[in-house]
Amino acid sequence: MHIPKGFEFAVTSAGFKKKDKPDLAVVVSHTLASAAGVFTQNIFKAAPVLVAHDFIKTSPTARAVLVNSGQANACTGERGRENCLQTIEMTAETFSLPKAAILPASTGVIGEHLHMEKWHKAQKALKQSFGRATAEDMAKAITTTDSFYKMSSTAVTLYNKKVTVLGMAKGAGMICPNMATLIGVILTDAKINPDLWQRVLQQAVSVSFNRITIDGDTSTNDTVFGLANGVSDVLISKGEEEALLGAVSEVCQNLAYMIVQDAEGGTKVLDIKISGAQTASQAELAARAVGHSSLVKTAMYGQDPNWGRITAAIGRSGALFQAEDVRISLCGVELFKDGCPVDMDIDAVMKGHLEKKDITIEVILGDGPGEYVLLASDLTHDYVTINADYRT
Amino acid sequence: MHIPKGFEFAVTSAGFKKKDKPDLAVVVSHTLASAAGVFTQNIFKAAPVLVAHDFIKTSPTARAVLVNSGQANACTGERGRENCLQTIEMTAETFSLPKAAILPASTGVIGEHLHMEKWHKAQKALKQSFGRATAEDMAKAITTTDSFYKMSSTAVTLYNKKVTVLGMAKGAGMICPNMATLIGVILTDAKINPDLWQRVLQQAVSVSFNRITIDGDTSTNDTVFGLANGVSDVLISKGEEEALLGAVSEVCQNLAYMIVQDAEGGTKVLDIKISGAQTASQAELAARAVGHSSLVKTAMYGQDPNWGRITAAIGRSGALFQAEDVRISLCGVELFKDGCPVDMDIDAVMKGHLEKKDITIEVILGDGPGEYVLLASDLTHDYVTINADYRT
Repeated sequence: MHIPKGFEFAVTSAGFKKKDKPDLAVVVSHTLASAAGVFTQNIFKAAPVLVAHDFIKTSPTARAVLVNSGQANACTGERGRENCLQTIEMTAETFSLPKAAILPASTGVIGEHLHMEKWHKAQKALKQSFGRATAEDMAKAITTTDSFYKMSSTAVTLYNKKVTVLGMAKGAGMICPNMATLIGVILTDAKINPDLWQRVLQQAVSVSFNRITIDGDTSTNDTVFGLANGVSDVLISKGEEEALLGAVSEVCQNLAYMIVQDAEGGTKVLDIKISGAQTASQAELAARAVGHSSLVKTAMYGQDPNWGRITAAIGRSGALFQAEDVRISLCGVELFKDGCPVDMDIDAVMKGHLEKKDITIEVILGDGPGEYVLLASDLTHDYVTINADYRT
Repeated sequence: MHIPKGFEFAVTSAGFKKKDKPDLAVVVSHTLASAAGVFTQNIFKAAPVLVAHDFIKTSPTARAVLVNSGQANACTGERGRENCLQTIEMTAETFSLPKAAILPASTGVIGEHLHMEKWHKAQKALKQSFGRATAEDMAKAITTTDSFYKMSSTAVTLYNKKVTVLGMAKGAGMICPNMATLIGVILTDAKINPDLWQRVLQQAVSVSFNRITIDGDTSTNDTVFGLANGVSDVLISKGEEEALLGAVSEVCQNLAYMIVQDAEGGTKVLDIKISGAQTASQAELAARAVGHSSLVKTAMYGQDPNWGRITAAIGRSGALFQAEDVRISLCGVELFKDGCPVDMDIDAVMKGHLEKKDITIEVILGDGPGEYVLLASDLTHDYVTINADYRT
């Protein structure tokens, strides 16, 4: 794992939901970093989303990102906002940072007030771990129902100097654009002005976290932060951001893939590729209809090449096309064209293909230029088990 | 059960999918009936949908409805259309009816060609059962994954004469407006001209089958037929259709409720009531977001009063509102208002409520006039089991 220069981590278990699970983490930059943020579009924005958005709007710089898991601090009204500001104050004191330089994010159960006494008690241990905790420790601390922690990093050489990008993210439910991640933290030692950095982060998010779906629900807390602290001394000027954008996009796409791979109860990653649509938006409509279809998702879980459910989904998606133009392939095998099933012993031909973890669903809608790619999970018994018993 | 005058039934087991399950049914009217139809809006329309739509457009009268279960005859192209026309020819010969007077509907697996030899073989037994089979027998024959057959009837007295309305429908998956039923057959002995009858059926469907969701998927085969054969001798003229509309709506609403009650794997009926929206369309957006949310549906299955998931769903629904205006009640208990959770021991207060089969979810979005009501199912382990292994 490449770790960008000039960042230090602190992690502890405050007991917000489960005892002894790390659930409180801070990353501190040695220097004042350019700060970017992409946030949920849900009308119910969690308190930390509102606060962080205000902070970045007021001044797009930061020294730290503060994340807790277990409690979302969403749908908690004015008291939630005050609690959020108090957690920032505590952190500022603990790490001797200015309050406005700390960006907060929370994930967990909606509609509970933060356990403030646990926050207070946790500060001592948090401070003690500072500099000893690793990026991995923080990646673990921000998870909730995730079965593994998610990190990705890459390094690029620019002007003969190394620039490093590191990302961490948590899934694993209530995942659907826009924005699709719950929490992501992207750190780099590149030097870049805040406006350009915000644009880089947004573009990277649009081709990664915004192109995945697990259950079609958009969280109240979705947040991706980016900190660029400049410690590498490589200045990225306007017009020269391509390489950094490539690196950040790669990291975000790796994390996005991992989020779908670790979908709540998921056993497969469905790579849904729509082409030949009249426009990219229509391709997106079709892709999302397939990616959200409970019937497609259960069929893939059951390893059943039931492509009829794919036709049913795209047929109701709102995308415009002629039924007889459509071609559907599953795992590279064409199953439907010219308005008819392809003549074959489908079970014999498909045998083995659907046992794989990565399933490609390709749909050609016609001869238009519109394309879209979406990663989706399957729908499983374990998804139901996890979500029928999450809060309690 | 009230059975309208002048209809006879024939039912047999042709073995389209499972041996010995009744899967082929015909209802024949003694007289030429006014015929109405409401069909799926999916771009992939099954062959019988296209054929029946043509028939009704050409002449809105019919003598019979022909339904098979097990094979949908959808995504089967020109061959599917020819097969459908052949099944109509067979039926015309078997019952000595004009071909154009028979309305076809199919339900079952998408993308398989009809087993024509089984259709041929079944004609003899079908004929033998004519007049001996009951409406119940037909209601059973049109089911697929349904766990019980669905019938409802009512009788009204108009001009001192009795008019009867009988409906049957099948569920139980790929249920979402518009149109939401797969197959429904509504029979009445009222005398009404085809235009007015079509309007009555459409209105009844719009307040019943179009207001339910199980899994958000719209079938390629959704069809509701209405036959009004006039045998009661009660003429319903324009401007006098209120009572008949009430009766047909009641029957359709009962069937719609039963479809949700019998949702694949479902254990609950969620009665989602949205009010206070700026418009009815915005209320509908919010209702559908809640009704389609896998997270809300699994929480209700798990008897978990996780109202945070309801806020997350309406917040991403596209409906416009202020978060602090929203009020949410579950089973009549208000849980969220003024942007905050209502202060209570939610688990103690809600205990028992969520064990019920009928769960009311009420959301007030603001003080606008827009309202919408939607019935939805929960999402369960059995839903996944049924749909992970349906085709095979």
